[in-house]
Amino acid sequence: MELQPSERLDDLLTHELRIIQSREVFSFSMDAVLLAHFAGVPPSGRIVDLCTGNGVIPLLLTTRTRASIDAVEIQPRLADMARRSVEINGMGTRIRIVEGDLREKSRELGWGSYDAVTVNPPYMPPLTGDRNGNEHYAVARHEVHGTLEEIVENCARLVRTGGKVSMVHRPGRLVEILASMTRWKLEPKRLRFVHPHVGSEANMVLIEAVRDAKPSLRLLSPLIVYADKERYSQEIMEIYYGSKGGSADEQAKEL
Amino acid sequence: MELQPSERLDDLLTHELRIIQSREVFSFSMDAVLLAHFAGVPPSGRIVDLCTGNGVIPLLLTTRTRASIDAVEIQPRLADMARRSVEINGMGTRIRIVEGDLREKSRELGWGSYDAVTVNPPYMPPLTGDRNGNEHYAVARHEVHGTLEEIVENCARLVRTGGKVSMVHRPGRLVEILASMTRWKLEPKRLRFVHPHVGSEANMVLIEAVRDAKPSLRLLSPLIVYADKERYSQEIMEIYYGSKGGSADEQAKEL
Repeated sequence: MELQPSERLDDLLTHELRIIQSREVFSFSMDAVLLAHFAGVPPSGRIVDLCTGNGVIPLLLTTRTRASIDAVEIQPRLADMARRSVEINGMGTRIRIVEGDLREKSRELGWGSYDAVTVNPPYMPPLTGDRNGNEHYAVARHEVHGTLEEIVENCARLVRTGGKVSMVHRPGRLVEILASMTRWKLEPKRLRFVHPHVGSEANMVLIEAVRDAKPSLRLLSPLIVYADKERYSQEIMEIYYGSKGGSADEQAKEL
Repeated sequence: MELQPSERLDDLLTHELRIIQSREVFSFSMDAVLLAHFAGVPPSGRIVDLCTGNGVIPLLLTTRTRASIDAVEIQPRLADMARRSVEINGMGTRIRIVEGDLREKSRELGWGSYDAVTVNPPYMPPLTGDRNGNEHYAVARHEVHGTLEEIVENCARLVRTGGKVSMVHRPGRLVEILASMTRWKLEPKRLRFVHPHVGSEANMVLIEAVRDAKPSLRLLSPLIVYADKERYSQEIMEIYYGSKGGSADEQAKEL
């Protein structure tokens, strides 16, 4: 196992999974962890994770399903990190990292051939003022290589009829996301908003849509991140650790 | 002041407002109270409330604005109740009850002439199985006299550019509502979900849109109705009574 400069090997805190991260290149966020927990996935079959970054979502999904997972990443540096993390965890037979532009890879991956799609896409439109100077982060955060509409289009193409597409995004883009999904015959079925505190606005939304389904939306209970100023909520603790209790201070570094 | 058989005169619990209700014909729900509290209204100017029922929303709005309020109701029996409630409260100069079909009245009310529109429409599509046997309730609950799309269309026609349209509805119709609003150039700007308990799914959504505005959506903190099995949350108490404390049991009848 070789780590490159700036890289570190982090514990994923569950099932003894480990993951390569790098502050200079890419570290996963809470968003990915919540999506991996929220997404509807089949017990077996085929899943594809788009914009996979360092592969955190497919790694976490292995704890919930025996499905074979393809994971697409456009940045060679991140795809390499993801591939090495898969090796470290001995997941080479379950997770395949596919390096390339989703818009080009989509057809060869196989339209309509996946039971579930997950995606934690860049949240910000291309070329806005606050584009990060670091190119790796810029590509992860901004729609440099594909718009939200293109990502939704490819989710819809990859998933089979009746299959699920799960996405995490910012609430500010909700109207656009729902419209785009509807256009591509992905019917939104479950929506869950993530609020830092019970009294604060949501800063994240989890969406599950089903391909070619009939309209009917469930609006799940709010997911509250902090119980108070010092502690994560019990639900967050359970999502991260599968356990109850523990102060935010203790685990703040790891989260 | 004359009450008809089955009618009663209820206290609106704020500013000494009273309202005529009838179990056989129409009683307002928490939904209307929450909308009247949530809606963005100008300090003066013109407001129109659609599907006004017994006029609860315009009556409550008088506590928040000096605007002149038109209120449209298609059912003659309910429009009459609303008119008498306006009289009882001495609000004849501030609230005008307009009886008729919104789709026919819209143009004569004045397209683009309102600073704000509020609407608590029927929640259920026409002709579904669970249509209530009581005709008054059926019209109030089902889209018998106009679809959701037609209601959104008329909201958009009545409000001026930059004016606000506020609606309360069921989360299950959210995708449809947002799509319909966007089609009619009503840009959703504030969304708030109402959950009976912090751990339960939302059963109501409050939406504010602005005519011809740029996209940008705020997802407000969840509005939790019950603090526990016995008590309303402090926020609900404040919305109803402008006060803090009081058990749900004590006020359950009134709510």
